[in-house]
Amino acid sequence: MSQPNVSQFRVIDLIRKKRDGGALSGEEIGYLVEGCTDGGIPDYQMAAWLMAVVLRGMTREETAALTHAMLHSGEVLDLSFLPAKKVDKHSTGGVGDKTSLILAPLVAAGGLFVPMISGRGLGHTGGTLDKLESIPGFRVALSVPEFHRVLKACGCCMIGQTEKIAPADRKLYALRDVTATVESPYLICASIMSKKLAEGTDALVLDVKTGSGAFMKKEEDAVFLAELMVETGERMGKEMVALITDMSQPLGHMVGNALEVQECIEVLHGGGPEDLRELCLHLAAWMFFLGAASKTVAEGKLLSEQIIASGKAFERFRQMVEFQGGDISVIDDPTRLPGAEHRVEVPSLQGGFVTSIECEDVGTACVILGGGRERKEDSVDPAVGIVVHKKIGDRVEPGEPLCTIRCHSDSQAAPAKTLLEASYHISATPPAHKTSLVRRAIYKADH
Amino acid sequence: MSQPNVSQFRVIDLIRKKRDGGALSGEEIGYLVEGCTDGGIPDYQMAAWLMAVVLRGMTREETAALTHAMLHSGEVLDLSFLPAKKVDKHSTGGVGDKTSLILAPLVAAGGLFVPMISGRGLGHTGGTLDKLESIPGFRVALSVPEFHRVLKACGCCMIGQTEKIAPADRKLYALRDVTATVESPYLICASIMSKKLAEGTDALVLDVKTGSGAFMKKEEDAVFLAELMVETGERMGKEMVALITDMSQPLGHMVGNALEVQECIEVLHGGGPEDLRELCLHLAAWMFFLGAASKTVAEGKLLSEQIIASGKAFERFRQMVEFQGGDISVIDDPTRLPGAEHRVEVPSLQGGFVTSIECEDVGTACVILGGGRERKEDSVDPAVGIVVHKKIGDRVEPGEPLCTIRCHSDSQAAPAKTLLEASYHISATPPAHKTSLVRRAIYKADH
Repeated sequence: MSQPNVSQFRVIDLIRKKRDGGALSGEEIGYLVEGCTDGGIPDYQMAAWLMAVVLRGMTREETAALTHAMLHSGEVLDLSFLPAKKVDKHSTGGVGDKTSLILAPLVAAGGLFVPMISGRGLGHTGGTLDKLESIPGFRVALSVPEFHRVLKACGCCMIGQTEKIAPADRKLYALRDVTATVESPYLICASIMSKKLAEGTDALVLDVKTGSGAFMKKEEDAVFLAELMVETGERMGKEMVALITDMSQPLGHMVGNALEVQECIEVLHGGGPEDLRELCLHLAAWMFFLGAASKTVAEGKLLSEQIIASGKAFERFRQMVEFQGGDISVIDDPTRLPGAEHRVEVPSLQGGFVTSIECEDVGTACVILGGGRERKEDSVDPAVGIVVHKKIGDRVEPGEPLCTIRCHSDSQAAPAKTLLEASYHISATPPAHKTSLVRRAIYKADH
Repeated sequence: MSQPNVSQFRVIDLIRKKRDGGALSGEEIGYLVEGCTDGGIPDYQMAAWLMAVVLRGMTREETAALTHAMLHSGEVLDLSFLPAKKVDKHSTGGVGDKTSLILAPLVAAGGLFVPMISGRGLGHTGGTLDKLESIPGFRVALSVPEFHRVLKACGCCMIGQTEKIAPADRKLYALRDVTATVESPYLICASIMSKKLAEGTDALVLDVKTGSGAFMKKEEDAVFLAELMVETGERMGKEMVALITDMSQPLGHMVGNALEVQECIEVLHGGGPEDLRELCLHLAAWMFFLGAASKTVAEGKLLSEQIIASGKAFERFRQMVEFQGGDISVIDDPTRLPGAEHRVEVPSLQGGFVTSIECEDVGTACVILGGGRERKEDSVDPAVGIVVHKKIGDRVEPGEPLCTIRCHSDSQAAPAKTLLEASYHISATPPAHKTSLVRRAIYKADH
């Protein structure tokens, strides 16, 4: 094992510097990211550096430099040809978190452009691309010219990460995944922000989840990451806000790809569950405000409500599906979406009130059914899922269904049923206080 | 990059455990060491784990388990056929540190066996094998049967690490060397002890250097490592002691391979510089005491002095050289050792007293001359070196030589000369107190 060829810097010196708690310069970080991307720096050196970052942390300057280097490791889209502001939303992931499918057409119908590059589900959280692909024919792998065309034509477009966008992130993430270096707010921030900024957006609304179904179970961890991402985006000249939102229970009632599309269509028609609708209105309000389509956030919310009520949001969604090759007959008649016909109810073993839900386990139950991925290479069944009937604070009678499993057989449902039963905590008295959906907004971080 | 095949444990869980400050079990550590040695665990996972160890540390149990696993990754010599105790000495390395060449024959002449497996010089420190190889014909690469034969015949034998001894250490060290994970007392301890215990010794005297020419510049770091090694050896049933000794200036007067052999021969003849002789007597005393050849350490020292005075130590050295293929005519007439004829003096720029020496720079000056290695693959010139005339506390006149460079030309000497000039600190007043050569002995650590 010999020292690789180096010119400007010695990799070992950069690892040592971080190991000893020092801060790397932008040039030093750029050198590492470049060497990692082109293979000039071996994985074992990057792995040692990543672990040093996890344990020593990074300054705000280093985090911004890492984001910058990863962003510029590949193509950065130029959407300046579009005649209005570009805004996007990113969520750190949750269970039943389906807001993107509602927000993109809603905000586009309000006159802004939403260039949305999304990911697939992994672990207990679902992914936007998997949900979209439950619409027969829907293509998420568009070329850049196609992406431009759809964006220009209908104001929004939802695609997957291309090979050309932030290749450093793909390389680094694969390495982090096998070296226990995923859980670092600095690395998470750089990974998210490098991909999101490559889309060419002017403004970004971050939905940072906290609670039993989120990656950041503790609110302080969510706030730390949110502030880091807001500051990093602002350093790069973007309009930024982060909403810290509740993920202590599934969002809405549907968990599972086609089921979630169905619920999104309900919201776009002006219905749908209250929490999902509320969160979408909040997020859209901020998107309008940051994109200068409303003078205040409150005005942005009003605008969002009007657009949904007018039917324009649904119309825009239908249009986007059509542009991206999807079968619009399932949008017009959601009963035609893939749906597993077998239903297994999960009854409550006792009566009382739902006081808390192990929300991650609900996500895992969906993965077990085949509706999500344990490993990246797994395929996903769009037809299965969970319909959540009871949420925190709800009263439940003994034997009353907490949720219904949608699957293909009783034997397939059995392990998910066990997990779901155990994920509900029922008590004789209702929970002391209801958790608020949007905990706080982090805007123009004080730095 | 996919998760490698695993059975009993998942590597990522073990990395995560150490990352989060947990302690790994003996089985878990054994699994990592085995996987690293046979290539089943990729380097990038080992690198992440090594960095987590550097930053999180290890318990005494983990350190012992790591040592045990590395020791048993290869062949462990069985020297039970020898009719007396086997004792050895290990030094953490210094400048002009040549005691092994004196101690092995001295202690063997006292009736114990010294099975010494040594290393090569790297960086500013010299290596025993390089020194021995300045004796024309001397073979350090003996087979195990040859090693047994020489040991049995003359009581001592000095060889290099074979391929079969502690292969895990070779693999891990190569990885540590390029991932900035060398500097961890736990990893240093396991690396040293796994190799030393593979020799089949009953007792081990550790010479842990501290000061400007040592790896551990701070005495507290030297003491920490010393205690760790003593405890680790004791846990494995060995008689152990560590002496914390001064390395704030070169040991003796000679720095350079053949020059150091020449100085060893002087000590074996009853002469040589005071500090080198004293340290050898101290180390030999402990070797005799731990090997039960003397009732006390003081008695061991007296025994050592008698053996040198009797000529038996020199005789045994001559015999070992002969057994290992070396040209004994250079032992009988050291002027016949390789010696660069060109001499360049390094004069003092001012008068006064030597108050301190940047001892590491003296070692580096020797490396620059070709007498040591910057990289493992470099070859070494046995003929070059530095003769140190002035040491700490010595009075010096302006223009009087501080040391003499032995090399092949003025141009070769120039950069070494600059370094040596700057390495001496001269003051009008003598240093307040003389540093003691042996600071303390760590014996039967309280645990």
